[in-house]
Amino acid sequence: MITLYELAGRDPALRFSPYCWRVRMALAHKGLEAATIAWRFHEKARLPGAPGNMRVPILVDGTKVVPDSEAIAFYLEDCYSNGPSLFGGAGGEAHARFILAWADVILIPAMAPIVAPSVLGLLHPDDQDYFRSSRERRFGATLEDLAASCGERLPGFRAILAPLRSVLAKQPYLGGDEPSYADYGVFGCFQWARCVGAPELLAQEDRLVGWREEMLGLFDGLAGRAVTAEAIQAG
Amino acid sequence: MITLYELAGRDPALRFSPYCWRVRMALAHKGLEAATIAWRFHEKARLPGAPGNMRVPILVDGTKVVPDSEAIAFYLEDCYSNGPSLFGGAGGEAHARFILAWADVILIPAMAPIVAPSVLGLLHPDDQDYFRSSRERRFGATLEDLAASCGERLPGFRAILAPLRSVLAKQPYLGGDEPSYADYGVFGCFQWARCVGAPELLAQEDRLVGWREEMLGLFDGLAGRAVTAEAIQAG
Repeated sequence: MITLYELAGRDPALRFSPYCWRVRMALAHKGLEAATIAWRFHEKARLPGAPGNMRVPILVDGTKVVPDSEAIAFYLEDCYSNGPSLFGGAGGEAHARFILAWADVILIPAMAPIVAPSVLGLLHPDDQDYFRSSRERRFGATLEDLAASCGERLPGFRAILAPLRSVLAKQPYLGGDEPSYADYGVFGCFQWARCVGAPELLAQEDRLVGWREEMLGLFDGLAGRAVTAEAIQAG
Repeated sequence: MITLYELAGRDPALRFSPYCWRVRMALAHKGLEAATIAWRFHEKARLPGAPGNMRVPILVDGTKVVPDSEAIAFYLEDCYSNGPSLFGGAGGEAHARFILAWADVILIPAMAPIVAPSVLGLLHPDDQDYFRSSRERRFGATLEDLAASCGERLPGFRAILAPLRSVLAKQPYLGGDEPSYADYGVFGCFQWARCVGAPELLAQEDRLVGWREEMLGLFDGLAGRAVTAEAIQAG
């Protein structure tokens, strides 16, 4: 029995964390079912495992508690080695780490100022003060100012994606002929933007649009069927 | 019998192209000997293979002519599969493409304005006009202005390297426990800067300094022993 603690909005069905989406996709890739538990930023004491575990995703598999999306991916690869590989062997794992590092230290910081303003109103009321103050400190600007300057940020953000375009001109997925955890690592970021209804990140003619569509359709449309802010607002 | 066409300076022993260094390292990794041929930018007609081959590296292996460093790496991996693997399997190849794409479309364009001013005076006299005009057009600035603004560029350049630092905090090489072609893809860029005597790119305390030292020492110090502008000027 696998349980996944995921960040949720005020509506517990809204799951938007890029890190949690990586794990969702990895579980589906391995053909594993998991119960998910909605967690909000203010519920620090509700998380399993070591007292230092203050963030999600956290995966609980029997008696094993695994925090951190990358650690979870390697855990699933090791413990469920009979399922389809997430990395394509030791060489795949070693090289995929760069893609995951790039997603964490380049892609997410560039995407966050564009996405964060859309997140605030979707959060549980008890999360909103924390979210606003922590993000405004991180970005050195109010969420309202970030929202207003979003259009200026897009060209620089799109330039950062150049290596993705270059690879996906040569092969259908970052993992090669099949998607790998590296694809989920990057896609999770786009799914974050999509779930919260952030401004469109890609130009219509961008080659990445097609790849993102492919990712939305995987596993019977797991990510494509996800609850979005738009669906919640439409009631 | 393998022959490698390499970019050379006025002094034919000065070989500084980042793309050619990738191939040198790949050949050594596979335990292959190659004769190298010094080539200069103005010698377009001297290149083997299709008339469209206007750039180096070009590898000639018997009757086979292979242009482009990445294509050469995949060629060596396929044709010399009994030597140590350059990629660590199909998963390694697929994911390494992203690292190579990042090196080509992010790292080299960020490094080039810092390195190019040092290149000019080392080139064959018949290459200098071409080099100056093509680079000044590309960067939208004179080589002299680029040299003068180098200090301002360094912090931004160093920020770009964050994913490398993140990976190399977890494993000794981009390839994992052993260097792979991904390491050579990135290292070739640093070797370019080193051979032409460009300003130091890394802060002293940067974790990448140690990795670069490791790369210089591989294969009996192949890259560390290379002829540099400094050695030529010292006579």
